[in-house]
Amino acid sequence: MRFPIYKLDRSAEEYRRALRVIPSGIYGHQGPAEGCFVPVEAFPFFSERAKGSYFWDVDGNRFIDYMCAYGPNVLGYNDEDVDEAAAKQRALGDCITTPSTRMIDFAELLVDTVASADWAFFAKNGGDVTTLAVIAARAHTHRKKIVFFKGYYHGVTQWTQKVDYPGILEEDVLNNIYVPWNDYEKLAEVFEENRGEIAALISQPYLHGNFMDNQLPGEGFWQKVRKLCTDTGTVLIIDDVRAGFRLDLAGSDHFFGFEADLICFCKALANGYNVSALCGKEFLRNTLSSVTFTGSYWLSAVPFAAGIACIEKMKRLNLPALLQEKGKVLTEGLVATAKKHGYDLHASGMPALFYLRIANDDLGGTPSLMLHQRWIAEMVKRGIYLTNHHNHFLNYALSDEDIKTTIEIADEAFSVL
Amino acid sequence: MRFPIYKLDRSAEEYRRALRVIPSGIYGHQGPAEGCFVPVEAFPFFSERAKGSYFWDVDGNRFIDYMCAYGPNVLGYNDEDVDEAAAKQRALGDCITTPSTRMIDFAELLVDTVASADWAFFAKNGGDVTTLAVIAARAHTHRKKIVFFKGYYHGVTQWTQKVDYPGILEEDVLNNIYVPWNDYEKLAEVFEENRGEIAALISQPYLHGNFMDNQLPGEGFWQKVRKLCTDTGTVLIIDDVRAGFRLDLAGSDHFFGFEADLICFCKALANGYNVSALCGKEFLRNTLSSVTFTGSYWLSAVPFAAGIACIEKMKRLNLPALLQEKGKVLTEGLVATAKKHGYDLHASGMPALFYLRIANDDLGGTPSLMLHQRWIAEMVKRGIYLTNHHNHFLNYALSDEDIKTTIEIADEAFSVL
Repeated sequence: MRFPIYKLDRSAEEYRRALRVIPSGIYGHQGPAEGCFVPVEAFPFFSERAKGSYFWDVDGNRFIDYMCAYGPNVLGYNDEDVDEAAAKQRALGDCITTPSTRMIDFAELLVDTVASADWAFFAKNGGDVTTLAVIAARAHTHRKKIVFFKGYYHGVTQWTQKVDYPGILEEDVLNNIYVPWNDYEKLAEVFEENRGEIAALISQPYLHGNFMDNQLPGEGFWQKVRKLCTDTGTVLIIDDVRAGFRLDLAGSDHFFGFEADLICFCKALANGYNVSALCGKEFLRNTLSSVTFTGSYWLSAVPFAAGIACIEKMKRLNLPALLQEKGKVLTEGLVATAKKHGYDLHASGMPALFYLRIANDDLGGTPSLMLHQRWIAEMVKRGIYLTNHHNHFLNYALSDEDIKTTIEIADEAFSVL
Repeated sequence: MRFPIYKLDRSAEEYRRALRVIPSGIYGHQGPAEGCFVPVEAFPFFSERAKGSYFWDVDGNRFIDYMCAYGPNVLGYNDEDVDEAAAKQRALGDCITTPSTRMIDFAELLVDTVASADWAFFAKNGGDVTTLAVIAARAHTHRKKIVFFKGYYHGVTQWTQKVDYPGILEEDVLNNIYVPWNDYEKLAEVFEENRGEIAALISQPYLHGNFMDNQLPGEGFWQKVRKLCTDTGTVLIIDDVRAGFRLDLAGSDHFFGFEADLICFCKALANGYNVSALCGKEFLRNTLSSVTFTGSYWLSAVPFAAGIACIEKMKRLNLPALLQEKGKVLTEGLVATAKKHGYDLHASGMPALFYLRIANDDLGGTPSLMLHQRWIAEMVKRGIYLTNHHNHFLNYALSDEDIKTTIEIADEAFSVL
């Protein structure tokens, strides 16, 4: 074997320390409490530092990171251009009683960049802006119901959760309607049945849910949905928190040839600096002004400066085309390597956000995911950070050499399965 | 007149630019759209830089700032100790796929510092952790109802808003019960009427609502409330987002002699770096682990490093005592100066978070606030940044000289009313 297996002793030790003072030790996707999300015995719990496409864990192991902090790392960790702009702003000030004019500059840049944006509003979480979008849609239409596509994720606020999740009430999700992705007939039927009652349809630009092959929109799907929303006075909200700026700098709605009424951005907006944005159409501007929505750090200037530098650099690089190309080379290489070993590896979704699944493990039609998880574990143990349940993310710093190493390690990982 | 009136030409110009790309130009408290919140013609819209107790606006005017970014600035803008710790962490990495062990260090420090904390969970907005607290209380009790004190503020998520606010549904607030502050009899009655149905009582440590004199808890009030919650199996949530660490580093519940089950922190936690925290009791740890709650930047290491430096410095300084003393000198000086001019200035709430109101303007029992607003405008126009509707915030960098200048300007401002 060419690639040594990483030791994770200090990670385990630190995790025991975390368990004493943090419920479940680590929350979110990285938490081993959510057992099936990650091959627990193989993955590092804590990082020490990061640069470019790599992070190093507390045991000193280096990982080629295909999760990119679940999205924010789009240019490479500690990108010098973004960090320099942020540091320059920080020397002046960050979280001040009145905002910096960097806020205006950032809004102007988004309005110039994002096709469907006539204005921008900034917050902190992706979930802040999906929630604001839903409130605004209800305020504008004076209707209650929200249509979701099954397999969605729009944050953790109560309205986004399920009635059987701990602490969620029937009332929280009473006005939610769930329809299958890519099924226009069913959607039109639901709109007909709820005529005059649907405030908004909220959707990611394509279905990139967890534990499932990601699914692109069918031919003409979005154009029909757009027309249906327009015809029925329904606000079309695109949640571009995850895919935003990796497919198209003008918005993922633009990439698929339509325009949202409201579009939500977060992750890739500022290369890890903490900001999210809601952009929208002129006809919703006054509604936005009327809604009660604010937060403690929302006027902070450093993330605005970082966001400006990030978007300007993504534009200079024409980044989506580069990520698309990197993603194609990587996923084609992985699929071919799998095939060599007799495995049927499916890569789905857009290459810049590829989702992987070994499809051989279908047991009577039910994918167990266990074989796939074992392969992921063999990858992670050798320094390729992937997960088994979630789409991945590419960043600009990922080199051809990194991709080559990844495929070589995949070869070894398949061989030991 | 000794103090020149500030010109705000560039602020007005930048505001017109903002209006084109941001709904209402500036959102939140600083937005002139919310007309009555601030004396619009007198106040600067945009800041250029900040240091210590001052910020400078885009016209080059310097303000002694009593809003402290609505709370986050607790040690002084760009505090060198906090910024150094943050910069050191930033050089290593911030928003990475796996968290830094700074997260554990920060949780350990909070558990050591906050009397009612057996664990800590970190998020980004104050509203993230009040929402998490309410979800956790419902998950733990399998009950629906939440009791609030009238005049509360717990963020902007739907459950915290009012049914007549734009975009808010009856369902969003169906399980909210509102009782008057400091009225234990009424509270006990409500608990009796809703026996076995109340998941939580959520409250700030004292009533520091807007447009009203702030009110401290009556003698023994919290002890009776604590007992009522314990006796009825109701989760007692303290929203210490606004007052936290300015009254008592062990928590404002500790200051008032009781212990919360869950306590929410944000603003003063990291001197402006973007982080919030929910701390709580052992018996709620597993419930917290079971709840679905996460976000894109929630594992970022820089705010953890900043938070550690901030809390350690506040402890070294015994900051709450210093802020209490500064606040007493300031408010006593302002009240005496008002009296000299025949005005009855009320200072309410805790001195570190003082609320001001000129009480002469009662028109048949209804305070118009207009005289007070005019006085605030005269202060702001001369470089003392106050607001007329909200409690203020003190920070460590505020000097005796700043307080002296403030009182001198107050003297002039009263003389021109």
